[in-house]
Amino acid sequence: MSRFIEIVEVGPRDGLQNEKLSLSVEEKLVLIRQLDAAGARRMEVVSFVNPNRVPQMAGAEEIMAALPADLEHSRIGLVLNMRGWERCVAAQCDEANVVVCASDGFGTANQGSTTRQQVDALAAIVERQAVEGGPPITATLSVAFGCPFDGEVSQDQVVAIVREIAALRVPEIAIADTIGVANPWTVRKRIEAVRAAAPDARLRLHFHDTRNTGLANAFASVEAGVDVLDASVGGLGGCPFAPNATGNIGTEDLVYMLERAGFETGYDLGALIAIGRSISERLGKAPASSLARAGGFPA
Amino acid sequence: MSRFIEIVEVGPRDGLQNEKLSLSVEEKLVLIRQLDAAGARRMEVVSFVNPNRVPQMAGAEEIMAALPADLEHSRIGLVLNMRGWERCVAAQCDEANVVVCASDGFGTANQGSTTRQQVDALAAIVERQAVEGGPPITATLSVAFGCPFDGEVSQDQVVAIVREIAALRVPEIAIADTIGVANPWTVRKRIEAVRAAAPDARLRLHFHDTRNTGLANAFASVEAGVDVLDASVGGLGGCPFAPNATGNIGTEDLVYMLERAGFETGYDLGALIAIGRSISERLGKAPASSLARAGGFPA
Repeated sequence: MSRFIEIVEVGPRDGLQNEKLSLSVEEKLVLIRQLDAAGARRMEVVSFVNPNRVPQMAGAEEIMAALPADLEHSRIGLVLNMRGWERCVAAQCDEANVVVCASDGFGTANQGSTTRQQVDALAAIVERQAVEGGPPITATLSVAFGCPFDGEVSQDQVVAIVREIAALRVPEIAIADTIGVANPWTVRKRIEAVRAAAPDARLRLHFHDTRNTGLANAFASVEAGVDVLDASVGGLGGCPFAPNATGNIGTEDLVYMLERAGFETGYDLGALIAIGRSISERLGKAPASSLARAGGFPA
Repeated sequence: MSRFIEIVEVGPRDGLQNEKLSLSVEEKLVLIRQLDAAGARRMEVVSFVNPNRVPQMAGAEEIMAALPADLEHSRIGLVLNMRGWERCVAAQCDEANVVVCASDGFGTANQGSTTRQQVDALAAIVERQAVEGGPPITATLSVAFGCPFDGEVSQDQVVAIVREIAALRVPEIAIADTIGVANPWTVRKRIEAVRAAAPDARLRLHFHDTRNTGLANAFASVEAGVDVLDASVGGLGGCPFAPNATGNIGTEDLVYMLERAGFETGYDLGALIAIGRSISERLGKAPASSLARAGGFPA
């Protein structure tokens, strides 16, 4: 039996959040349903941020209300703070993905709070979930390979935060290269260090293809034993700190690389390519994923 | 001391050959001199094909005549047959890179000859060089991971051809993913198999980023002990079999990934980014390399 790699589809959240154009709730639902049909089983569908600050993410509650609960699909909501957690619980998400920034510079600029404050917020959310219930919690450590404000983010810095998150018994921790500056050698080293710091947590890796290293980093992760990766259909998203750059690694690119090497992903590559092309057209841009441009092989 | 990875710049040949626009001899010389100044020490500068068939490659003799011999720079000419070899010798190239196609389908369509005929031509060229002199010969095995006409190219097929090339004592053999269908797991296996078949040859790897796996394949190659990689500034080139696809892996992308991980390449990343941007502008397209769009990190 071939090894299964789980790909968490983050296009409707991380992808759309970084696009200039905002889609309507109905358009987002079409995209989410297409991705469901193409094989996505875990999908970041909404973000519980303030829609006045991030208009692309408006309509989280309406989207969740329109998506029926289904044991085979996990509807993930992004959560930055207690207010977001409360909305996530009320909206009945299947998972809450709580973000902690690895650098104070990014945390302050992006979420208005330091790493310390964000770890404390995560701890408070975990505690509240233990008492009041709510969806399973995963944590994403963003800018874990470099920060546009603070520059390099060291392995020690990452390990120290991961150790604190692990102490909260969060079952899955994502290490995110939010601005696309990781290289596969560092990825491998950091995975080993993080695994030692959080031996009971499942590791998820999140890459952006800003500097073309996304699939190399994904390959290094899979080789280092990681079984869960984030990706975004069409390579949706951009980078607010590099205006012409591309976004997340494309789901179709990742599926192509993995399935061509004999891994299973559960996705339909042809369907992903079609979605990548249509959503890019809707957003008024050429697809950022390579498969949407070149097609698969053999054809 | 950090490990040195040699990057052979192929933009002026493989890059420009697959662009719609043809540059003048003078424009090509400007590009070549810029790349020299940016650190290129081995560069595929010309192709001795019939300029009526490949107008982008016209002017090979004029280009060579304008580039002074220099012990620190190797001016490589691409050679497909004995006629090309004779032109390469007359033009005083420092190296001849002789192409052998791994599939008959590609060989017939691209060079009008089968793999068998091309191996025989290489043998005749090697024999003639032994008698009459001429530049060192390297061999490139194209479509070594898949062919647009014949589909999959097996490892056995590649190994059998490499064994024949190795018997000719060619000092360097390049394994080329001409249409960008390799994945890093296959790359690693094929490198091991080829090394066993040609233990005395230096291995060079040549990747196209058509399906976004180029840097992952480069990473896998370096990890497998390969010290020489081809790349093309600006990610120049396209794929005649996938009209919207990108070309070779970008030199600046490869340099960024390697140097960020502590390898040495001898290239100036900032200069490469500037060249990638200007040559893409001249060719009327957005740069295909990610670094030319996003810039380096730290800035």
